[in-house]
Amino acid sequence: MTFKVRDYECDLQGIVNNANYLHYMEHTRHEFLLQKHISFAQLHEDGIDAVLHHIDITYKASLRSRDEFISQLRVTVEGYRQVFYQEILRKDDGRLCIRAKVENVCVQNGRLIIPEELNQQLLNPPAL
Amino acid sequence: MTFKVRDYECDLQGIVNNANYLHYMEHTRHEFLLQKHISFAQLHEDGIDAVLHHIDITYKASLRSRDEFISQLRVTVEGYRQVFYQEILRKDDGRLCIRAKVENVCVQNGRLIIPEELNQQLLNPPAL
Amino acid sequence: MTFKVRDYECDLQGIVNNANYLHYMEHTRHEFLLQKHISFAQLHEDGIDAVLHHIDITYKASLRSRDEFISQLRVTVEGYRQVFYQEILRKDDGRLCIRAKVENVCVQNGRLIIPEELNQQLLNPPAL
Amino acid sequence: MTFKVRDYECDLQGIVNNANYLHYMEHTRHEFLLQKHISFAQLHEDGIDAVLHHIDITYKASLRSRDEFISQLRVTVEGYRQVFYQEILRKDDGRLCIRAKVENVCVQNGRLIIPEELNQQLLNPPAL
Repeated sequence: MTFKVRDYECDLQGIVNNANYLHYMEHTRHEFLLQKHISFAQLHEDGIDAVLHHIDITYKASLRSRDEFISQLRVTVEGYRQVFYQEILRKDDGRLCIRAKVENVCVQNGRLIIPEELNQQLLNPPAL
Repeated sequence: MTFKVRDYECDLQGIVNNANYLHYMEHTRHEFLLQKHISFAQLHEDGIDAVLHHIDITYKASLRSRDEFISQLRVTVEGYRQVFYQEILRKDDGRLCIRAKVENVCVQNGRLIIPEELNQQLLNPPAL
Repeated sequence: MTFKVRDYECDLQGIVNNANYLHYMEHTRHEFLLQKHISFAQLHEDGIDAVLHHIDITYKASLRSRDEFISQLRVTVEGYRQVFYQEILRKDDGRLCIRAKVENVCVQNGRLIIPEELNQQLLNPPAL
Repeated sequence: MTFKVRDYECDLQGIVNNANYLHYMEHTRHEFLLQKHISFAQLHEDGIDAVLHHIDITYKASLRSRDEFISQLRVTVEGYRQVFYQEILRKDDGRLCIRAKVENVCVQNGRLIIPEELNQQLLNPPAL
């Protein structure tokens, strides 16, 4: 996905505030899920809450006002966890800004579950 | 520091959105710096930008609308990095919600620096 | 209520971003409702959504990093609308920063309702 | 401009939080300014801060998770003020969600100014 920094996402240093990268990455995951016909909002209405368990994020370079950037991911499943490897690259020069490993789990009625159907949808290659 | 969840910080699952914990932790660090007479805004005006290098965050439990919580930290210095170990606990029952390791670096004119004065202020025990 | 500006609420001009005043005012209204034993989240679970209909906001002065401020309101009921007159004042010197009129309506099953019970709770003077 | 609601912009009612519409409208104004070769960040570096003076916003309908919407504006100049008439429409059915009048002023060294050059750029029809 390609995004563009919005000025309100920058803090008084003139760079994107660290928390906004989590927003960008979350939106990228949700759009990816939608492409797989998995709706985050629908999951919630079905009583399954996908919640983050762990994020490991390295900030390599800062984005600034008006920068365009590419947000990409790949996904694997490990036990209870859906693991997203995510990167954000500045579009202009391809510089790596963010590298992150995001681990998600699914909770239903307060308990961890392995969402078999969701996992299959996640891992299936896109239809031709 | 003690905080209270604001409704606008909750997402459609009714829990605090993952990015807002980074906001809580950032505000806690900045208030800690102010207690040490280090102003984040002043640093920026002096040409030194404190930027995050790495965050490792584990989400243990979710905060919800109206929850009060305690945000605490301890700090060490390791080479170029100022390392904050941070925790967020629900006030009600003391449950650990977030555990994080936040690594910061200081940049001046585009180069990493070791801010000796800032590091000393960080590590000094508070005056009696 | 007394608040303190958090650095992440400031934009690259070094002042609080205009949208954050809506957050401050919303949080103030919700805390006011809670004092009246009206829970915004509980209302939602009961199928009644309180939604904003109209805001008229004048920006008189800007808040900056570390400013403390007072957020106050008074409320009236006019037909379908709950009307909040809100002000934000800088604590330091009492300067008026924001003056706003916020009109809310309540929706149940997609229709405007007059929430009699809620209105009474809103207008009742606090118990001694 | 066309936008798409991001899930983190929705609150626990499942609708876009009221403050986010100010973000959408601000981003639309800044993109409009950029098209006119006026950079908000550049203005700030030049010592001129464009600050909001007044917003009058009517919420007609709510946007929800995954909605796409169109954000449009027209601008006039009235004395010290740059006045933006803005609308947000749901893309799907063209329903009007937001109608707002946003009044901006420019401040240099703490004083209101009439930014002649900026005003001309604002009002000029786009080059063919």
